[in-house]
Amino acid sequence: MKEQLELFIKSALISWYAQIKRADNLFNTLSDEQLGNEVSSGRNRGIYLLGHLTAIHDNMLPLFNFREQLYPELKEIFIDNPDKSFKELPPISELKLKWKAVNSALAENFESLTTQDWFQKHNSVSEADFAKEPTRNRLNVLLGRTNHIAYHTGQIAFLQTK
Amino acid sequence: MKEQLELFIKSALISWYAQIKRADNLFNTLSDEQLGNEVSSGRNRGIYLLGHLTAIHDNMLPLFNFREQLYPELKEIFIDNPDKSFKELPPISELKLKWKAVNSALAENFESLTTQDWFQKHNSVSEADFAKEPTRNRLNVLLGRTNHIAYHTGQIAFLQTK
Repeated sequence: MKEQLELFIKSALISWYAQIKRADNLFNTLSDEQLGNEVSSGRNRGIYLLGHLTAIHDNMLPLFNFREQLYPELKEIFIDNPDKSFKELPPISELKLKWKAVNSALAENFESLTTQDWFQKHNSVSEADFAKEPTRNRLNVLLGRTNHIAYHTGQIAFLQTK
Repeated sequence: MKEQLELFIKSALISWYAQIKRADNLFNTLSDEQLGNEVSSGRNRGIYLLGHLTAIHDNMLPLFNFREQLYPELKEIFIDNPDKSFKELPPISELKLKWKAVNSALAENFESLTTQDWFQKHNSVSEADFAKEPTRNRLNVLLGRTNHIAYHTGQIAFLQTK
């Protein structure tokens, strides 16, 4: 039983890293010019989605009770406001470094979690609510955030030449 | 420990049903005309992605060892060939019924699986490979297919009016 639990956590992490890798491949192969384009007419630009994913992942650090955000300034630009709210965005090269840094920080912390740690509540749920809904644990957030990458990766893929 | 395993399977299913629901909401609110459009210039049409998701989910029935596909004829049109390979596609109303039917068939079978069943190998992996890679189980396929819905839902969302 313990072995199966470990297997499941491993599966969830494999799925997470696979989505990160797919997004990574896109960010590494798309030019800065391509990332500056809208993924579809009138929609978010690639650079915005790069910043958005970075900010969401950065926010997972406190949500999982690992540490404070590495780049709290990203939240206002890439989560609280839609694309084109600000005249200038941070340079793509800088965002790419931050994207790598937050994912590395998460990976390091994930590796140090025990099986039991994964079933503890995440930081934005109260003890009372957690008692009622024990699925609101770290593992559950990981599954949700994995789908979140996939959702936007399907869009970023449109920046590739046909 | 048993309780946590059940909790984890429940989480994976909640995540699956949440993605199905999000796609459902899109398919239910988009008009046939909208679904007939390309999700982005030169990309797949909504109707193709509806058929594609239906065919992929239909294929999960044999993959999970539940039963043969309900609509094996969809594979050639929506998996083996890209959009616009065929002059005519099945009507949207018919695809929507099939989409509901395959998801219902999966849901019924998912509910009948025991915890142990989730950790059994899926049908496209050999016994030998499974011994080496025990993560290639049903649960793992479910996680992968959940990301697959999210990936395409991010694209289908572009059919909504801005």
